[in-house]
Amino acid sequence: MGIIVQKFGGSSVADTEKLYNICKHIIREYNDGNKVVVVVSAQGKTTDRLITEEKEITENLNPREHDVLVSVGEQITISKLAMCLKEKGYSAISYTGWQLPILTNSIYGNAQVQSIDTSKIMDKLNSKYIVIVAGFQGIDNEQNITTLGRGGSDTTAVALSIALKAERCDIYTDVDGIYSSDPRIVENTIKIDTISYDEMLELASSGAKVLHNRCVQIAKDYNMPVCVKSTFEKESAGTFVTSKNNLEHTCIKGIAKCDGLVRITVIGKNNKIGRIYRLFSILANNNLNVDTIVQSFGEHIEKDISFTVKEKDLDETIELLNNHASELDILEIRQDKGLSKISIIGIGITNNLNITSNLFELLYENNINMHMITTSEIKISIIVNNNVADFLMQKIHDKFIV
Amino acid sequence: MGIIVQKFGGSSVADTEKLYNICKHIIREYNDGNKVVVVVSAQGKTTDRLITEEKEITENLNPREHDVLVSVGEQITISKLAMCLKEKGYSAISYTGWQLPILTNSIYGNAQVQSIDTSKIMDKLNSKYIVIVAGFQGIDNEQNITTLGRGGSDTTAVALSIALKAERCDIYTDVDGIYSSDPRIVENTIKIDTISYDEMLELASSGAKVLHNRCVQIAKDYNMPVCVKSTFEKESAGTFVTSKNNLEHTCIKGIAKCDGLVRITVIGKNNKIGRIYRLFSILANNNLNVDTIVQSFGEHIEKDISFTVKEKDLDETIELLNNHASELDILEIRQDKGLSKISIIGIGITNNLNITSNLFELLYENNINMHMITTSEIKISIIVNNNVADFLMQKIHDKFIV
Repeated sequence: MGIIVQKFGGSSVADTEKLYNICKHIIREYNDGNKVVVVVSAQGKTTDRLITEEKEITENLNPREHDVLVSVGEQITISKLAMCLKEKGYSAISYTGWQLPILTNSIYGNAQVQSIDTSKIMDKLNSKYIVIVAGFQGIDNEQNITTLGRGGSDTTAVALSIALKAERCDIYTDVDGIYSSDPRIVENTIKIDTISYDEMLELASSGAKVLHNRCVQIAKDYNMPVCVKSTFEKESAGTFVTSKNNLEHTCIKGIAKCDGLVRITVIGKNNKIGRIYRLFSILANNNLNVDTIVQSFGEHIEKDISFTVKEKDLDETIELLNNHASELDILEIRQDKGLSKISIIGIGITNNLNITSNLFELLYENNINMHMITTSEIKISIIVNNNVADFLMQKIHDKFIV
Repeated sequence: MGIIVQKFGGSSVADTEKLYNICKHIIREYNDGNKVVVVVSAQGKTTDRLITEEKEITENLNPREHDVLVSVGEQITISKLAMCLKEKGYSAISYTGWQLPILTNSIYGNAQVQSIDTSKIMDKLNSKYIVIVAGFQGIDNEQNITTLGRGGSDTTAVALSIALKAERCDIYTDVDGIYSSDPRIVENTIKIDTISYDEMLELASSGAKVLHNRCVQIAKDYNMPVCVKSTFEKESAGTFVTSKNNLEHTCIKGIAKCDGLVRITVIGKNNKIGRIYRLFSILANNNLNVDTIVQSFGEHIEKDISFTVKEKDLDETIELLNNHASELDILEIRQDKGLSKISIIGIGITNNLNITSNLFELLYENNINMHMITTSEIKISIIVNNNVADFLMQKIHDKFIV
């Protein structure tokens, strides 16, 4: 039998009872004859608590020391989980990121995995141990502690699966798979059995929070099957994320929503070459993420370009644009707050003309005004007012999925 | 100027305010032109809390995973202290035990330091950094995390001072030095300015809790001056522990007390060679520490030997002796509970006949019964009933010190 990597997030390991709960998933795979490697996050609110204490000390981020501080959360979990498994009669051993080591670059707080030395893990797996690895953390070439940033433990799990040539990587979470839409908003959502890496990437970057798109990207690059499963169900089939697509799937895989957007429209004097490039490079250099971009090519002398930013970035964006107004030939800046983006994801979606026309029909029938639309090979995103977004999601779900 | 190593214990770093408080001691030495290396313990009750959580998981100790768990306490402190110093405008960097590394043997929970690589520290000191090192922890040859056991951070500080060829090692604590006796029990105690390693060793092993005798032993072996100072006073002269003795010191340096002792008397059939060796090796093999030992060499056929153990070890000791009663030719076992040991420490103490006779006179005058007495080059210990111990300590202090 092969190697299975299992990852359990913070809510799955929050206390002693929950640690013992996840042992049953570990032991089940182990007793089936698999070699089991477990990646864990910090318990519950541990990292949040450390960050609160850090803010008590200083409002200035010290990237290196921040990573030294927050990496202890995972170290606590690995030792405790090893104790639980031993208490249940199994051989288990824990490893921190530096003990393997998991080598990363030196970007504190958002480091990228460069390589993983699996020799200690393989030794222990061959001696019938269950191996537990701290997620979210690594070290750079100088032995400084680094952390991987958001979705870090998922990234550790997938990267480790690849390094170990594992059969698959199971991501255990508090839901039993990826759904066709957010069950807290939309009725009659259905669980997706199989989804392609590309569809999952679009879903993740469009607002679905189950998997971080960073780990999906790595899984895709190395063709590592990832399975999203429920920690709290006895045995869940979950959702498979693979390169193989389920032939029977409906064209539309999922519908995701992202709230809290603002549309900024910049009206300029003319379409001087490089003006738009300059505008977006100024925003990017200030770490302002721009999402949907639409440019009009009207006949009149003024040219306008619209894009969306997160509400939290609005003030900074407007200030930057004002500071560069003359350089960028800006005549006027408009803003529309309270917008949401709804994305419809499925392979071949834009080749299917019915979907686009059905979508426009649905908007017309329900008298919903669409501010912007963008399409890619596998995604259609529309920007609408936030107050109709949930209603529209349900309507789209009813029409295209169920 | 040279290198100063400062060590701050758990109560000195318990919260953000206290972390900022110790910065003033660090910055004072730094601004005086010294190269400063700081060793810290876990904050306040952090380690206790982790151990409570560990006991929730299992009553069985898993030595390796225990050390992985409890070593996070110091890692939290080093990162926070580095943040405090940076906030105050100083360059500071933290190192865990493994980052240097501090190499130890593999005795989890009670590891001994083998060597310390000081290259990273020296680099940073030469670049004007204040260097902060996690106490209590190291790694073995296989990169397993180890902890140094009781008094571990003091040991780290002294070992590091030796490796760095520091000028001295300052141990900051909640008292401003070593006192002639415990100020919570005895009135008119006086602070000791200078004490020899040997006297300090006897004081520490006789019940004085300020310094652990393990770190004093290392300091003695390498002739590293150690200074015990107060964290909470602006600038305290403290007590120097060195090889140089203060010529003006009174013969008696200090008086220490150790409560909770039981005297066990074993009455045997004869004095067969090896019987006593066998008795104490059985106890030692079961990690039962025996303290004061007195053997009578009477004329009668029965031989008896008395020794003291800690009350918590009583049941196990008695059980062991009963199990080996025939092998050890034991006729009877007696026990006297509720005893205390008072130790009087000073170089040349047993060469000074006045002290011994004055001590006996004092016991006689106050009608105090002494159960046992042992003497060494620099110590006289007497075993008395616990209910007279504090009174007697004061009387001895009044007579010999003030």
